[in-house]
Amino acid sequence: MSERIYNFSAGPAVLPVEVLEEARANLLSLGDTGVGIMEHSHRGKAFSAVLAQTEADCRKLASIPDNYQVLFLQGGASSQFFQIPMNFLESGQTADYLVTGSWSKKAVAQAKRFGTPHVAASSDDRNFTYIPRQFDYSNDPRYVHFTSNNTIFGTQWASEPEAPGDAPLVCDASSDIFCRPIDVSKYGIIYAGAQKNLGPAGVTLVIIRDDLVEAGRSDIPEMLQYRIHAENDSCYNTPPTFGIYLMGLVFKWLLKQGGLDEMHRQNRQKAEKLYAAIDDSPLFKATAEQDSRSLMNVTFVTGNPDLDADFISYAKERGLDGLKGHRSVGGMRASIYNAFPPEGVDRLIEVMGEFVRSRG
Amino acid sequence: MSERIYNFSAGPAVLPVEVLEEARANLLSLGDTGVGIMEHSHRGKAFSAVLAQTEADCRKLASIPDNYQVLFLQGGASSQFFQIPMNFLESGQTADYLVTGSWSKKAVAQAKRFGTPHVAASSDDRNFTYIPRQFDYSNDPRYVHFTSNNTIFGTQWASEPEAPGDAPLVCDASSDIFCRPIDVSKYGIIYAGAQKNLGPAGVTLVIIRDDLVEAGRSDIPEMLQYRIHAENDSCYNTPPTFGIYLMGLVFKWLLKQGGLDEMHRQNRQKAEKLYAAIDDSPLFKATAEQDSRSLMNVTFVTGNPDLDADFISYAKERGLDGLKGHRSVGGMRASIYNAFPPEGVDRLIEVMGEFVRSRG
Repeated sequence: MSERIYNFSAGPAVLPVEVLEEARANLLSLGDTGVGIMEHSHRGKAFSAVLAQTEADCRKLASIPDNYQVLFLQGGASSQFFQIPMNFLESGQTADYLVTGSWSKKAVAQAKRFGTPHVAASSDDRNFTYIPRQFDYSNDPRYVHFTSNNTIFGTQWASEPEAPGDAPLVCDASSDIFCRPIDVSKYGIIYAGAQKNLGPAGVTLVIIRDDLVEAGRSDIPEMLQYRIHAENDSCYNTPPTFGIYLMGLVFKWLLKQGGLDEMHRQNRQKAEKLYAAIDDSPLFKATAEQDSRSLMNVTFVTGNPDLDADFISYAKERGLDGLKGHRSVGGMRASIYNAFPPEGVDRLIEVMGEFVRSRG
Repeated sequence: MSERIYNFSAGPAVLPVEVLEEARANLLSLGDTGVGIMEHSHRGKAFSAVLAQTEADCRKLASIPDNYQVLFLQGGASSQFFQIPMNFLESGQTADYLVTGSWSKKAVAQAKRFGTPHVAASSDDRNFTYIPRQFDYSNDPRYVHFTSNNTIFGTQWASEPEAPGDAPLVCDASSDIFCRPIDVSKYGIIYAGAQKNLGPAGVTLVIIRDDLVEAGRSDIPEMLQYRIHAENDSCYNTPPTFGIYLMGLVFKWLLKQGGLDEMHRQNRQKAEKLYAAIDDSPLFKATAEQDSRSLMNVTFVTGNPDLDADFISYAKERGLDGLKGHRSVGGMRASIYNAFPPEGVDRLIEVMGEFVRSRG
């Protein structure tokens, strides 16, 4: 094996080394079963135990109340963008969307296929560099949808917005789920593609309140009904078994680290250090507004695209990969999810300093 | 690692040891990248190369003509069951279905949500123990759908049926894809969940002719349009990167074995040997009719459910796992996909003989 480098990729992203080592040890035989983890029947004893433990650890980690289902689906957040309005929004009905970046906009576009999404807040006016504080909610929306962290723009909600009346809060938490404690009881649905903070691409965690499981349409394909997946413990069809296993290892790792309070402490420490280095630098500048900065994706620029490119190459030569920002922001993006090691942040800060000094 | 046992699971199923070893070696670092295969961005150089090579090897293996797209999707065959009629069947329109088992029936049920499926043939009258030879096609169906191999009932089409007129042939090949050569040009769409003959659960191979990519509806969610996935080389959203990588390793392994002609020879040899042992046995009896027997799933019974259970335990104690038949057939099912080693078939035949002798 080559030496591992520091991987700042926005997703698929770095996973804990311990998790990868454990998966590696079970690839040809899960424990003493003589059958590799990917080769076990999803209805057999061995995988059923993995699935049950993964759900139990998820519930423990986030103190998920009993009136919520924990589902392991496929298709990523992009599938939830349409599956949620398909289930809960009928023609003529309104759901409110808080638009804080490209992913929120995609969610709105899918909702338009089924009902009338109302944009109750947007930070589009300043290229999504901030999280809105004022909401213009519609009267009695079916739900309120928001994106808790914006991978591309490096912004994050400090806490969840309050939905009006009884409207369930629906959250795309793909890029910050379990980076800090979460009060699940404030939400109707929380969903997250795994590939940023939970595991490999190809499995979507959906935490959904029982009344919403029941309220979803029953005249749509079974695969698109939450109730079918809930009734079948995510095994209506063959689930992505390896992805679920890996996510289970990540949950175990998070519990071993000390749970979500401890992850929050570590994530704050990593992010604050990096933002401080950027703020102190004569060359680099953070793109997100101070009070909206993300703990997960730190976006910054020099102000000169050529110089940005020079820095990205310079860092890559020094074993820091994946720092190129998204084209809609430019510059750099350091994705420092739960599994990203603190030493990698220290190294990035060093390399930023070296780069500045190298220019004399 | 424990010694590997013989895994007769119907799916997720056994994978080639060489493939698992290669994956294991790249779990913490793909080649010398310093980043594990699951941790690479789906838009980065390393994974883009994996994706391109996987598609190229798939095309080479099955001589897929240039006017077909090769897509890597999520959601398994169960998602294709609704996605196909959603795209190609409108209210009042008819598509013909050849019903040879539980999976075909599920496909018909989904088609009913969108149009009028017509059952042009069914082997339901004799509990799906055979492949129909006569078809009662409707006038000008939108497409003809069949299931090339029936995992549960142990039957397989010897060759594809001929569709009437210009109707595209649509095939659920989940449980026998690439077990033998296939003339892709005879098909409109071939789809297969990976977890039986191609890789891990969570990735679906879809081979679809260009005119059908174009003909699909464009007023449905992007994630459900084949054109969107084709235009974006399966990267409209984050694809199941590890599953695609694994499938790519399986394609390489198949090419190294000698390609589909050689796999066919091996599969015939394994299956014929096992069916001969069953036919020669005083105790065991094959459930599928002679001319409809599957090369992939060999189903057999003793005629006495208690004795079946005894044999399954007896075999399990001797390192032969996953032999329990599906509840709708009972008895035993030996799934002997491409990756199932010939020695495992020999061992099963030995153990069957020992069991017979042990009963005196």
